[in-house]
Amino acid sequence: MKTVVLLSGGLDSTTVLAHALYLGHTAHAVIVDYGQRHRRELRSADEIAWHYKVPTSHVAIDPMAFAGADSSQVGQMKSVPHGHYAAPSMKTTVVPNRNMILIALAGAVAESVGGDEVWYAAHAGDHPIYPDCRPEFALAAGLALFLGTVKGIRMEAPFVRLTKTDIARRAIQLHVPVELTWSCYDPQLDEHPVDDHPTDVIHCGLCGTCVERREAFREAGLTDPTEYAR
Amino acid sequence: MKTVVLLSGGLDSTTVLAHALYLGHTAHAVIVDYGQRHRRELRSADEIAWHYKVPTSHVAIDPMAFAGADSSQVGQMKSVPHGHYAAPSMKTTVVPNRNMILIALAGAVAESVGGDEVWYAAHAGDHPIYPDCRPEFALAAGLALFLGTVKGIRMEAPFVRLTKTDIARRAIQLHVPVELTWSCYDPQLDEHPVDDHPTDVIHCGLCGTCVERREAFREAGLTDPTEYAR
Repeated sequence: MKTVVLLSGGLDSTTVLAHALYLGHTAHAVIVDYGQRHRRELRSADEIAWHYKVPTSHVAIDPMAFAGADSSQVGQMKSVPHGHYAAPSMKTTVVPNRNMILIALAGAVAESVGGDEVWYAAHAGDHPIYPDCRPEFALAAGLALFLGTVKGIRMEAPFVRLTKTDIARRAIQLHVPVELTWSCYDPQLDEHPVDDHPTDVIHCGLCGTCVERREAFREAGLTDPTEYAR
Repeated sequence: MKTVVLLSGGLDSTTVLAHALYLGHTAHAVIVDYGQRHRRELRSADEIAWHYKVPTSHVAIDPMAFAGADSSQVGQMKSVPHGHYAAPSMKTTVVPNRNMILIALAGAVAESVGGDEVWYAAHAGDHPIYPDCRPEFALAAGLALFLGTVKGIRMEAPFVRLTKTDIARRAIQLHVPVELTWSCYDPQLDEHPVDDHPTDVIHCGLCGTCVERREAFREAGLTDPTEYAR
C-alpha cells in the first residue's frame, strides 16, 4: 500500500505520517506552499520528511486563488486572532476551500507516482471552525477523488474522530519528533535566541493553534517541548 | 447569482459562460495554467473573457503535481494520440485528477470573490475516457465543495448530459465567438500564414479533440470556422 500523506509540518499530519509508516505502508509526502502566512511550517515539513526519509513532492498553489479572501492566513492577511481555537473569532483563519484543493492535488500526485490512497490529518478539534475538516466533507471529497481518478484513488482522514489530546498521546507512542513540528499561525521573532539562529522564529503562544497545542500536551500529561513567545 | 465559470478557452466552457450570461447570471471566469502542452488555449480563454467583458482570475497550478504522470498533456508529455476522441488510445490525454483540482480552485475563488456557484463544462462525449467528466464525479465533487466551504458553494455541470454536437448548436444559438475558441491538444505551426502572425499556431486536425470538434460542427450542419493543419 502506497499512501500519499498531506504533510503540513504540524503535529497532526506528522503523526498521520508516523501512523502510516507504523502500519507498514510505503509513504510519499506532499508539502504544499499556498502562500500561507505561517510559512515556517514548510521548513518543519521538510525536516520531518527528512527525519522519516520519505520521498516528497513540493507543490505550490498560486495565491491568486485566494485573492480577496477574508482570511488571516491568505488573501487579505488580516491580523491573526488570539484565543481559544474553537471560538467564533477563529473563523478568519479559514483558508477558502483549502482542503479540497490539497486533497485534489495529493490525488494527482498519487495517480502520477503510483500511489493507492491519500491521507489527510483532519481531527475533531477542527470541526467547529473548519467545514473542510468535518467527517461529512471527508466522505464527499473521498468519493469525488475515487470517482475522478482513473485508478480510483481512495482518501482517508484516519484521525477525523480524534481530539488533539488523543493525537498528542499517539504522537508520543509513535516517537514522533514533536520538537520538529510547527503549529503556530502567527510566527514571532525569537527575542532571546540561544544558538546561532539569531533571526529564527518561534510559536506565538496566543493564536488558536498554539492554544490548542498547549492544551493537548497538558491534557495528555506530556511535556511540551515547544518554545512560545508568550 | 454570481457564477464562477472554469474557462479553458475551448468551445464547451465558452458556451457554458455564454449560457450563464444568457440566464442573467453575473459571471467571473477562472483561467487555469496547469502546464498544459496545449498552452495556446490560455490565449483563447483570455480573448473570450475580454469578448464577454467578464472579470477573470488567472490561477497557476504547479506542474510538480503531475510529475511522472503517464500523460501526453502534462508530466511525461508523451506524444499526442491521433484518432477518435472516444478511442482507448485517448487515455494518454488524461491529466490526473484535473477536474477535482480545477473545481476546488474555482471554489476557493468563488468563496474569495463572493460567488455563489461554480460551473464547469463536462459533457457526454468526455464520459468514455475522462472519469472526472462523468455525472457521478460531478455529483460527488459538488457535494464536497458544498460541504467544504463556509458559504456552501454549489457546483453545476450544466452540459454533462449534452453531446458535443448539442453544444455546437447551442454555441451558434448563443452567438458564441466560435472562431476565438481553441480545442486542439497538439497545436501545429501554421505553415501558410495569411496575415501578420507568422509564428502563429493552428489546430492539428488529427488529435481527439480536433476530431470531436470537426464531427460536432458537421453533425450540427454548421460551418466550422477553424483552420486545421491536416
